[in-house]
Amino acid sequence: MAQVTFWFELASTYSYLSAMRVDKEAEAHGVEVVWQPFLLGPIFREQGWESSPFLAQPAKLQYMWRDIERRCTALGAPFTQPSKELLKIFPCHTVTATRVALVGLQEDWGKAFIQACYQAQYADHQDIGDEAVLATLIERAGIAPEDALEAAKSPKIKAELRANTEEAQACGLFGAPAFTIGDELFWGDDRLEDALDWGKAAS
Amino acid sequence: MAQVTFWFELASTYSYLSAMRVDKEAEAHGVEVVWQPFLLGPIFREQGWESSPFLAQPAKLQYMWRDIERRCTALGAPFTQPSKELLKIFPCHTVTATRVALVGLQEDWGKAFIQACYQAQYADHQDIGDEAVLATLIERAGIAPEDALEAAKSPKIKAELRANTEEAQACGLFGAPAFTIGDELFWGDDRLEDALDWGKAAS
Repeated sequence: MAQVTFWFELASTYSYLSAMRVDKEAEAHGVEVVWQPFLLGPIFREQGWESSPFLAQPAKLQYMWRDIERRCTALGAPFTQPSKELLKIFPCHTVTATRVALVGLQEDWGKAFIQACYQAQYADHQDIGDEAVLATLIERAGIAPEDALEAAKSPKIKAELRANTEEAQACGLFGAPAFTIGDELFWGDDRLEDALDWGKAAS
Repeated sequence: MAQVTFWFELASTYSYLSAMRVDKEAEAHGVEVVWQPFLLGPIFREQGWESSPFLAQPAKLQYMWRDIERRCTALGAPFTQPSKELLKIFPCHTVTATRVALVGLQEDWGKAFIQACYQAQYADHQDIGDEAVLATLIERAGIAPEDALEAAKSPKIKAELRANTEEAQACGLFGAPAFTIGDELFWGDDRLEDALDWGKAAS
């Protein structure tokens, strides 16, 4: 079976769209998907940006929220136009949440936790950079938060996230979500179908 | 009949994709399309960029050429990976070419000329900032280049292009192509279908 790698960042609004539909679409295409979280922060900093490039482009940022709202409506995914509070913390700090996601993906609760992280941010306007919020989300995925958070802070998980981010960079990633099949890179939720078609043809 | 405005910039690779398919898709949707050329330069300069933001992001630029290549293949539109010469002039200066396009759109050769401009750049690696190149493209559209270039330099056409660009800015445009239906904005060739669906529903 063909394998497509799904690269996502937990603070990325367009990654949210893909996280809500990638498994269903992949199944329809007969393609296997590997969920690979990484951090955009170090990649943005290499470009000279301190944070999301959206913040430097007010017109694009404003458009993005409306675009995401329309796409969430089409997908049936929850979304609420950002509150002033969310705008102040956007994009959330995702290092700890992403390490927790890595732990969860190695067990069986990763995807539920990841989807909960996106909805916490973009429907409920919660800060997933806050460990108390994370604990609630982990608990909702059916896991003891203390154990998951401890595992997330292990040297092994920290090294894995660093390695994922370095691999993303080596693959030429500059944003999220992205999809790779061998050397072929597709960027953006809009390229999900193309990536799956490519994966299917390559198998 | 519903009306959708198609905003494009002659140096924009993704506008090329839309220019090659917008009329056919609009017809299939039963929606009327108004072709509205504008300049991205003044909008980019307002953001503090001297040129295309692609130039500041080498990984994204490299990806873009491959992405456009794949999409052109799917569309059956001519494309050749950029030569060193094209990379030196990308993005071309489009002020005169866009004024010519405005003249052509008020007659009956605008769309043929616009498509020729995109193919000259992205299949043949020609500089549409060069008036000799433009003259050839105008001639190929069946028009005397001298007349078209003279009309393009009239105060009326200059004012129209300025007004289009100001209107684009007022509509919140930050890139091209884009599509508007009333206050609703869609950005990117990937949103063409969504924009036409929106236009159809609004009619």
